[in-house]
Amino acid sequence: MAQLDTQFMQQALELAARGAFSTSPNPQVGCVLVRDNQVVGSGWHERPGEPHAEVYALREAGDRSHGATAYVTLEPCSHHGRTPPCADALIKGRVSRVVVAMRDPNPLVAGQGIERLRQAGIDVEVGLLEQQAREVNRGFVSRMERQRPWLRLKMAMSLDGRTALANGKSQWITGAEARLDVHRYRAQSGAILTSARTVLMDQARMTARHPQAERQPLRIVLDRLRQLPPEHDFFAITSPVLRVVEQRDSAGGDEHWPEHVTTLALPVAKGRLPLRALFNKLIEYDINEVWTECGAELAGALVAAELVDEFVIYMAPKLLGDSGRGLLQLPAFHGLEQVPELTFESITQVGDDIRIIAYPKHGGAARGEIVS
Amino acid sequence: MAQLDTQFMQQALELAARGAFSTSPNPQVGCVLVRDNQVVGSGWHERPGEPHAEVYALREAGDRSHGATAYVTLEPCSHHGRTPPCADALIKGRVSRVVVAMRDPNPLVAGQGIERLRQAGIDVEVGLLEQQAREVNRGFVSRMERQRPWLRLKMAMSLDGRTALANGKSQWITGAEARLDVHRYRAQSGAILTSARTVLMDQARMTARHPQAERQPLRIVLDRLRQLPPEHDFFAITSPVLRVVEQRDSAGGDEHWPEHVTTLALPVAKGRLPLRALFNKLIEYDINEVWTECGAELAGALVAAELVDEFVIYMAPKLLGDSGRGLLQLPAFHGLEQVPELTFESITQVGDDIRIIAYPKHGGAARGEIVS
Repeated sequence: MAQLDTQFMQQALELAARGAFSTSPNPQVGCVLVRDNQVVGSGWHERPGEPHAEVYALREAGDRSHGATAYVTLEPCSHHGRTPPCADALIKGRVSRVVVAMRDPNPLVAGQGIERLRQAGIDVEVGLLEQQAREVNRGFVSRMERQRPWLRLKMAMSLDGRTALANGKSQWITGAEARLDVHRYRAQSGAILTSARTVLMDQARMTARHPQAERQPLRIVLDRLRQLPPEHDFFAITSPVLRVVEQRDSAGGDEHWPEHVTTLALPVAKGRLPLRALFNKLIEYDINEVWTECGAELAGALVAAELVDEFVIYMAPKLLGDSGRGLLQLPAFHGLEQVPELTFESITQVGDDIRIIAYPKHGGAARGEIVS
Repeated sequence: MAQLDTQFMQQALELAARGAFSTSPNPQVGCVLVRDNQVVGSGWHERPGEPHAEVYALREAGDRSHGATAYVTLEPCSHHGRTPPCADALIKGRVSRVVVAMRDPNPLVAGQGIERLRQAGIDVEVGLLEQQAREVNRGFVSRMERQRPWLRLKMAMSLDGRTALANGKSQWITGAEARLDVHRYRAQSGAILTSARTVLMDQARMTARHPQAERQPLRIVLDRLRQLPPEHDFFAITSPVLRVVEQRDSAGGDEHWPEHVTTLALPVAKGRLPLRALFNKLIEYDINEVWTECGAELAGALVAAELVDEFVIYMAPKLLGDSGRGLLQLPAFHGLEQVPELTFESITQVGDDIRIIAYPKHGGAARGEIVS
């Protein structure tokens, strides 16, 4: 029984994962309805405003939902949002048992869907494959529990840890497959964070160019010194931009900015934009996951501020030598006990390159075999 | 048949591999004798002066070698060395067929053992799992075919490619498992190459401290400027040292060196010891494999001279930042098309760290899945 439960929840998780390009800012959810060990209905939540996973599964099952077990990767909702509550739909579908991978991470609603099901006499179990369910929705969970998005820092480097030659040349250190992988991450993120310097140096547009891309992420550009003019190519693309600049006393801002560019002026301390405050601010923009591509200065600042949740590092089998540019500007350490420690999560071959995923050591990530 | 042949040769290769700590400077060889699909004898060459693999296998088989097939990872020898020719022993054992993974790479003897077997009416096949057989003996093959040892360059670094803090502190970036892995490599190498600077900075002794170590490798220290005095701890250990210094016109060398230290004076060009000439010279010392542990200067010089056959890089999940010390001093490149390119051979988890093995791109290494 336990083994079958796990197998069906695994199926539900795989359905949830299908929403990677489309579901945010909503959580990705999968649902499998099982009667007599047969799947009688399944579904996943595809995009905001469209039906939830449970609704698709119930539609497919019809009367066969009576007495069935529902496997849901996230606690069924109990509130009237853009769609009616899924808990009610499951009750109406007369399921006899609901297995839930994880509670709704929103503290204001957590448990209410489960409670409603139990009051209707339905057997509810919570916590099966919870870790995996949290990982599928790490951005949503982060926004709900920590009031800031999940932050991924992408870096591309040579085997000896260099991001560019001394003369700045960096196109291309990694191969086409790695670059496509980057565009997949971009397309799955709610926002891309970069700096004016990176945009200027690399003529970067920071758009998601991937066959599965459904929409463009918000592009956040840190431009404290207002170096990027409105006529820069970066703004020629009309996907939304959040331009973060230093707050000034003078009115300033004489430029005319196109409609898709929002300017956010923040107070600067010690010559630096307030990164943590910015990320909390992103909650207002419903951002679950931020994908960061920037130079050593901003990357180092993010690491030093302990804001990076996940490192995604592409390593090319090349040697650039000590004169090449480094990865991270960090304060000088006096002893090795002071340096930031990570844990390797996975190492994956991507074309001729490898992709290394690592978490901050005390970030609470699961740890298994890292090479796969 | 072909499948069984492969399986028995695989067994022979596994036997050969057992000599990793003891067989050099001889080649590692394994032999399996099979009659009626049953292994009737097997053996491997353990150490110089002791019987060859074929002899052990024939002893075990006794009369059952008559009509058997012998699987040998290297062409049986045909000359009287410290032991009688193995080709003769196989003939005497009346085997009917010999499968050889690879010819003897020594151009002076290659094929003679095979020829002798064929003249005795024995069916001989050559080339089964040849690539694997060459890899088992890559050092011996390199010495025979290229007149220089196989050179491994070991480096230990943080995730951002730094070998030490700005203040020089580097103990310990990697964990205990990675350090034990280093000692395994040391114990399996004919020589360890280092620089006087590394010895002075790290108080390095460069001995093989591993439970399976059978003997100490030759320690080669490049000390162009004669910075290491005889009383340094490095020389207190009595395993052999080859001290390589700059040739000078004056007699010099007033120090009294202990008996286990040999001084080799070489002419210097452009302020650098002649590395390629040194490696050719190592043939005189019967060195198959050299394990290199040094700083960014020598490592860079070896890379620039295209002398590195294999990179063994331990990467710790730590971030040291741009002020940390780099891996390799290389000339400044103008474009990415100029930088040394490698291919990843394998990525392996070693404790909390990972070990990356890479080959120069045109080094002819086989390429499969790199993460294992």
